[in-house]
Amino acid sequence: MVQVEKWDVFETELQGPKEGNPFTEHTLQGVFHSQWETVTTDGFYDGDGVYKIRFMPSFEGEYDYTLSADFLKDPVKGQFISVAPDEGNHGPVRVANTWHFAYEDGTPYYCLGTTCYVWALQSDERIRETLQTLKESAFNKIRFCIFPKHYDYNLKEPRSYPYEGKPMDSSVLTPENFWEYNNRSEGNEWDFTRFHPEHFQHLEYCIKELCKLGIEADLIVMHPYDRWGFSCMTKEQDDLYWKYVLARFSAYRNVWWSLANEYDLLHDKTIADWERYAGLICTHDPYGHLRSVHNCMPFYDYTRPWVTHCSIQRQDLYRTAENVNEWRERYRKPVVLDEIAYEGNVPHGWGNISGQEMLRRFWEAVCRGGYPGHGETFLNEEGVLWWSHGGKLHGESHKRFQFLLDIWKQTPGNGLMPCDRFWAEVCAVPQVSLSPAAKDYYLIYYSFMQPALKQYHIDDTTEYRLKVIDTWNMTIEDRGIVKGRFTVELPGKPYMAIQLVKEN
Amino acid sequence: MVQVEKWDVFETELQGPKEGNPFTEHTLQGVFHSQWETVTTDGFYDGDGVYKIRFMPSFEGEYDYTLSADFLKDPVKGQFISVAPDEGNHGPVRVANTWHFAYEDGTPYYCLGTTCYVWALQSDERIRETLQTLKESAFNKIRFCIFPKHYDYNLKEPRSYPYEGKPMDSSVLTPENFWEYNNRSEGNEWDFTRFHPEHFQHLEYCIKELCKLGIEADLIVMHPYDRWGFSCMTKEQDDLYWKYVLARFSAYRNVWWSLANEYDLLHDKTIADWERYAGLICTHDPYGHLRSVHNCMPFYDYTRPWVTHCSIQRQDLYRTAENVNEWRERYRKPVVLDEIAYEGNVPHGWGNISGQEMLRRFWEAVCRGGYPGHGETFLNEEGVLWWSHGGKLHGESHKRFQFLLDIWKQTPGNGLMPCDRFWAEVCAVPQVSLSPAAKDYYLIYYSFMQPALKQYHIDDTTEYRLKVIDTWNMTIEDRGIVKGRFTVELPGKPYMAIQLVKEN
Repeated sequence: MVQVEKWDVFETELQGPKEGNPFTEHTLQGVFHSQWETVTTDGFYDGDGVYKIRFMPSFEGEYDYTLSADFLKDPVKGQFISVAPDEGNHGPVRVANTWHFAYEDGTPYYCLGTTCYVWALQSDERIRETLQTLKESAFNKIRFCIFPKHYDYNLKEPRSYPYEGKPMDSSVLTPENFWEYNNRSEGNEWDFTRFHPEHFQHLEYCIKELCKLGIEADLIVMHPYDRWGFSCMTKEQDDLYWKYVLARFSAYRNVWWSLANEYDLLHDKTIADWERYAGLICTHDPYGHLRSVHNCMPFYDYTRPWVTHCSIQRQDLYRTAENVNEWRERYRKPVVLDEIAYEGNVPHGWGNISGQEMLRRFWEAVCRGGYPGHGETFLNEEGVLWWSHGGKLHGESHKRFQFLLDIWKQTPGNGLMPCDRFWAEVCAVPQVSLSPAAKDYYLIYYSFMQPALKQYHIDDTTEYRLKVIDTWNMTIEDRGIVKGRFTVELPGKPYMAIQLVKEN
Repeated sequence: MVQVEKWDVFETELQGPKEGNPFTEHTLQGVFHSQWETVTTDGFYDGDGVYKIRFMPSFEGEYDYTLSADFLKDPVKGQFISVAPDEGNHGPVRVANTWHFAYEDGTPYYCLGTTCYVWALQSDERIRETLQTLKESAFNKIRFCIFPKHYDYNLKEPRSYPYEGKPMDSSVLTPENFWEYNNRSEGNEWDFTRFHPEHFQHLEYCIKELCKLGIEADLIVMHPYDRWGFSCMTKEQDDLYWKYVLARFSAYRNVWWSLANEYDLLHDKTIADWERYAGLICTHDPYGHLRSVHNCMPFYDYTRPWVTHCSIQRQDLYRTAENVNEWRERYRKPVVLDEIAYEGNVPHGWGNISGQEMLRRFWEAVCRGGYPGHGETFLNEEGVLWWSHGGKLHGESHKRFQFLLDIWKQTPGNGLMPCDRFWAEVCAVPQVSLSPAAKDYYLIYYSFMQPALKQYHIDDTTEYRLKVIDTWNMTIEDRGIVKGRFTVELPGKPYMAIQLVKEN
């Protein structure tokens, strides 16, 4: 019998009609059954008379399934065995405890993401380069788009389009006039009822490659940076698109749903539209992948029941990571800062902070119990900016993320929360250990401040191992055991932290 | 006839009774009259049978005066001539136009202050050193206390006390226990009805030395860091003190009244008390020197009619200078940021920012139409911290203030206001030139951002001279004339600015 790892994809296909419009004229479904679950999934047309149905088993053991389609006389039945997951396969990421994530097998997930909007729509060579960069990085999530992107530094044709048809003539575009073509469909000739399967097959390849690297694919399903009319389709066209996307991608365990990048700039869409898309996800993704909506200015209402976590773009030039405490309290969901400005040197204010400032925002976010996100926008002759195209990293902050992640993973439990105990420093304690247990572990970050010493008195008796951490130079100095009133001598420079771990 | 410069001090004295309590039992007044003004001033007892009356003429020309006292049978009459002020004597600083200052002769005053709380109560040698440091600095205002200060790094005895009597035994104090003695009077033996004239004479020497250097003396009349009971005197004692201070210091043109440092920590005082002190200033300072109140946490209500300007301590660890726009709108008075944290390395969060961060806050404040203030808290073996004792400067920001001031003084009119025209940069235009004239001059600061280029289009025809300013390295690069759409190439590092000056 076919064997499939738990949380991997079982895929089966049917031959069916090519004539007419297979995308709209036919529907198919699979019902997958085991001792522990019965799941119904949608299939999709993959071109050339092939219809596919995918399924992700959430349990080990025998599964039987029934496939039905309007073009089948009789349902097709089959079986497979779901076997124990390989090392590195921890299942989908879930919200584990109000503010924090864990994989389905319980392994804590410390979300440390980056953004490369259309890395997947670049050349094979560039995609290989991006995957290599990701492999060598600390990133465990990447945000990217299904649709191509039309924006500064992004005026070229993508490698493929999601629909059959013809794009507008892009030779008319210049860095000065491109905005005039934004959110418009004139000059394009698409059949919005006929998808281009190769576009989606290629995205699946990318999602699977990410999965091999242990990286979550935070799929941006809609976005406003568009000259092709994909951002201003009709309600019926939108729904067809959403259902196709859900049928194709839901079975990949590393998929997250980002309903939009900057939903508020999609001026044709109303809140009722976003809520309708959310309803489609909830009813057509049987696995409950994480769901959120990313803003430009006003936040989406993260209190909506279907929103699993905040996906925040900064609203203020100065404070973002610093607001995590407030947002945690307000939304009581994981606070993911998907855009806290990008390290780089573009003219745009969202894309020209230094590596030091980016790293500072990362540590602030982490020590306040949130999840920071990276992006990079350095101008270069090739015009390849990580934030959009992937490729190589040119900045300084990313080199220090693995160091942060290694320390972060030492958190008892699976997440940090802010501690108000110490003024004018950013103090984190484990989320799981409330009150007395909060004394087990402290991670205290001094941010831009540069004290030459700090004095502490947690209690009279508990012994702690004190480590002094230089977050920029990535050094850790073990200062031995401290107890009662103690003074920490520091180098009097910014970006330092200390860790206090209770001795047993 | 005696000649006195306009805005200098005319001082005259009377011999009177030494017996009893001359501070409380006798009053004296002067009435000064010229073609342009008639001013009544209070005199004060200066010890040793000497009673003094001071007057600052605000006009040139002949003055006659009448001195009266309860111990004089007949008033004493006299005359003097007020002559044209010397170069460097511009009169007292006034609010010139809602948000900005000018000296009384109309010269714009760009307030760039520092804080040395008790520099005036140190040794002669230290005071000489402080004055030399100030002379070599760009500072044109200094905040300091009349009362001595009891605080971390400030536990020694001051050079003198304002009252006759004996202080508590300070040998019991340690850095750990000093707070227990704060805001208490036990162990002190003061006669709060008998001032110690030498204490005040010495402060006058300091005020006059500052005046010679062109530095405003922002006198902190009350403050909470006190082990001597000066912060918890009775209403009658407070009022006697205020009247004595007003009678002695009002005639010095460079005096400002800071009712308190951190008024909200003087727990014995109510808003009614502060309002009463303000009433005493308004009625006993006939020259209308500038008046404000400095906060620890909540701001004093700067909309009060007698408050001439905001005297702000930061409320947020991250944003202070960045809030100037908001505070300008809210209070419609000059926004002086007397404490935006100090450059240094003490453990306290208010005193350990870097020189770069301090300078960044200065430029932010200036380009938002406010007035930044400096202070320095570097630990050193001598225990001499500029913020409290004066002495020498050890930081990096102060070296860059003259450079800032030189550029600031190029502002057409006498002050800057924020301009919302350009997003994600801090843009200033002259306060005086509204709408069309705002196109005359731009000072644009990029703060922590590090664009490699910026693009502008102010209009199609106006020609500007473009200068690129490195605020940290203090270089100015003249890029010549620009017009229409133009691109500014920048080095892609933080703390850069540009200046655009309309060509005639």
